[in-house]
Amino acid sequence: MPPGKSTPSTTAGPIWVRYDLPAIRKAVTREKIASRGPGIWRWRELLPVKDDASIVTLGEGLTPLLRAPRLGAALGLSNLFVKDDSLLPTGSFKSRGQAVAISMAKELGIKRVAIPTAGNAGGAMAAYAARAGMEAFVFMPDDTPIINQFEVSLAGAKCFLVDGLITDCGKIVLAGKEPMGWFDISTLKEPYRIEGKKTMGLELAEQFNWKLPDVILYPTGGGTGLIGMWKAFNELRELGWLESEKMPRMVCVQSDGCAPIVRAFEAGEKHAKPFENAATIASGIRVPAAVGDFMILDAIRQSGGTAIAVEEKQIVEWMKLGGSKEGISIGPESSACIGAAMSLVKSGWIRPDEQVVLYNCGTARKYPDVAPPRVWRIQKDKPMDWGMIGK
Amino acid sequence: MPPGKSTPSTTAGPIWVRYDLPAIRKAVTREKIASRGPGIWRWRELLPVKDDASIVTLGEGLTPLLRAPRLGAALGLSNLFVKDDSLLPTGSFKSRGQAVAISMAKELGIKRVAIPTAGNAGGAMAAYAARAGMEAFVFMPDDTPIINQFEVSLAGAKCFLVDGLITDCGKIVLAGKEPMGWFDISTLKEPYRIEGKKTMGLELAEQFNWKLPDVILYPTGGGTGLIGMWKAFNELRELGWLESEKMPRMVCVQSDGCAPIVRAFEAGEKHAKPFENAATIASGIRVPAAVGDFMILDAIRQSGGTAIAVEEKQIVEWMKLGGSKEGISIGPESSACIGAAMSLVKSGWIRPDEQVVLYNCGTARKYPDVAPPRVWRIQKDKPMDWGMIGK
Repeated sequence: MPPGKSTPSTTAGPIWVRYDLPAIRKAVTREKIASRGPGIWRWRELLPVKDDASIVTLGEGLTPLLRAPRLGAALGLSNLFVKDDSLLPTGSFKSRGQAVAISMAKELGIKRVAIPTAGNAGGAMAAYAARAGMEAFVFMPDDTPIINQFEVSLAGAKCFLVDGLITDCGKIVLAGKEPMGWFDISTLKEPYRIEGKKTMGLELAEQFNWKLPDVILYPTGGGTGLIGMWKAFNELRELGWLESEKMPRMVCVQSDGCAPIVRAFEAGEKHAKPFENAATIASGIRVPAAVGDFMILDAIRQSGGTAIAVEEKQIVEWMKLGGSKEGISIGPESSACIGAAMSLVKSGWIRPDEQVVLYNCGTARKYPDVAPPRVWRIQKDKPMDWGMIGK
Repeated sequence: MPPGKSTPSTTAGPIWVRYDLPAIRKAVTREKIASRGPGIWRWRELLPVKDDASIVTLGEGLTPLLRAPRLGAALGLSNLFVKDDSLLPTGSFKSRGQAVAISMAKELGIKRVAIPTAGNAGGAMAAYAARAGMEAFVFMPDDTPIINQFEVSLAGAKCFLVDGLITDCGKIVLAGKEPMGWFDISTLKEPYRIEGKKTMGLELAEQFNWKLPDVILYPTGGGTGLIGMWKAFNELRELGWLESEKMPRMVCVQSDGCAPIVRAFEAGEKHAKPFENAATIASGIRVPAAVGDFMILDAIRQSGGTAIAVEEKQIVEWMKLGGSKEGISIGPESSACIGAAMSLVKSGWIRPDEQVVLYNCGTARKYPDVAPPRVWRIQKDKPMDWGMIGK
């Protein structure tokens, strides 16, 4: 067992893993971590798994931090970066949380797991459960992208389509705990997904040479990524590993088709009211009620950040802007952050020379239905019309 | 300019980049390379780019080498590994070749590029061209998976659907060179894609601690990956960086729906005849005639390898086997290698304890049409039938 491990506290509500940080500070250094292979398990001491043999891995992390000068110029930013989690197994940041959650489930002897999902978390859980040899049950809204259904099915998990939203799926998973004997891997119903998501912040800190950036734009559904990054930054500060006092301003980005956190932030409330008639093509942020709403709001406020809802109908245009300016496959959720950056630069909330990170949570390739490809048809036996092709 | 660089030779047929290996041996060590960041550019001295400023990167490489004990057990192999290039930008190994080809195009001042593609190479070229700010034209068969059309279009490239095969697309790109003034990025029409693919072999060597595995199973379309790996192994041997004399037996895997190389191998021929009526759901290996056919056949023969055609109609089952046993998203092309492993173990050509690498060239997520997901529909307001769910 690595030094400084502690078991989760058991207060009501979400469970929060705490570490004996002074013991960790004595046991490992930043240099030692950097000397290990890439991937989230280099952060071994800051993750909850006790026995190395429990680790279930598909090679997740260290994802690229890319300078984005051409997209930055379009947005009026001279120091824009994209943290590209589309390169994780299963094509999204959900792999970070599932790698740790399923490893812990293995350590605890669990054989059967279930999850409600907007899509990508289910795909990731199915993959890690397969890797661990566990039986997996995935519940998703019946209009979830076909690629998510496909990846769950290919991984041998059972895929259920529910005529409702993710919150309805969550109720089914909860109700099934006793009759089905499964472990509930819902966001914040178990404490380990957030520990996996924490590696988003740990990697950013290392990639920025331990001086955190000014602003992080993050598309917010269940919000574990934002909460996890904020937890990471605070643990690193307590460890004394940061080279600068500055903490990033955390920006929660939602679509105006589903913006419960933004409404609560603007109203100065501690919890968010469920968002009625939630609708957005960015299925990952179609979360009308988040269990960890108060933790998201706390992190935004503590960081001096903000919450912003962008125009749903512009999301596809922003996807195209990111793709064509940088060649990065930015899913609809994170494309909303492009719109948010535009607004925040315009209003002066972000200064043009600040270091801004756009978190790309997942590949656009899972969402072919949001925008039919623009194509031209060519007949091979007819003379080419080069003028048409060049236009 | 790094030491030991040489320009391509200009004999007829494919151009082959040669390096001054003794100079490289003096300039860099394996340890120095290992101390650099992950990714293909750690192999700087063994790649053709002269000026660092020319490098166009999306964070490609170092992809995971995963032990696959559960899939191995199903195939009768105790040392099966999957090299998982589905984690590259654009979800396939094509990013390796395009990263280097587009970087070289940038170094040479090229502003406009074109490519014929079975799908993934076009997606990768479009992404890297966008990253470099180049204009890109992509020609693909009109039944190429929609995700490939989508990714090309999202990256701002022009996507053309041709009523024919990749060979027909190649003719159009060739014919357009003069009227359109574009640079032809076809397989082996320029020498740098293969240099990028070489990193497949370089990474494997490093990940196996410089003792190469016994067998590499590789799905073969245009074959640059196989040729590139073989080139890498030979350069490493000449550099004196390998710890063992053993070279892997290279296995070319094709579908019986399109098996030109297998036929030529079996017939003992130097070149392959075009395969009539090529048809396979594994679109990446639907290449009826490969420009580098003789180079593929040479590599297989020199390595003591073989070529094998597997049953087209089993490919989807093998995809499901890989997905459900290991949670790895193995595209239809590389899933053919699962079938090949089964046959070769059965025939005794592969011994059960040999180190065998299955090269996963790309994610299954781009091919949702090959197998509709198996799903169950649930009505949220009806009582759950837990018995049905558990079945």
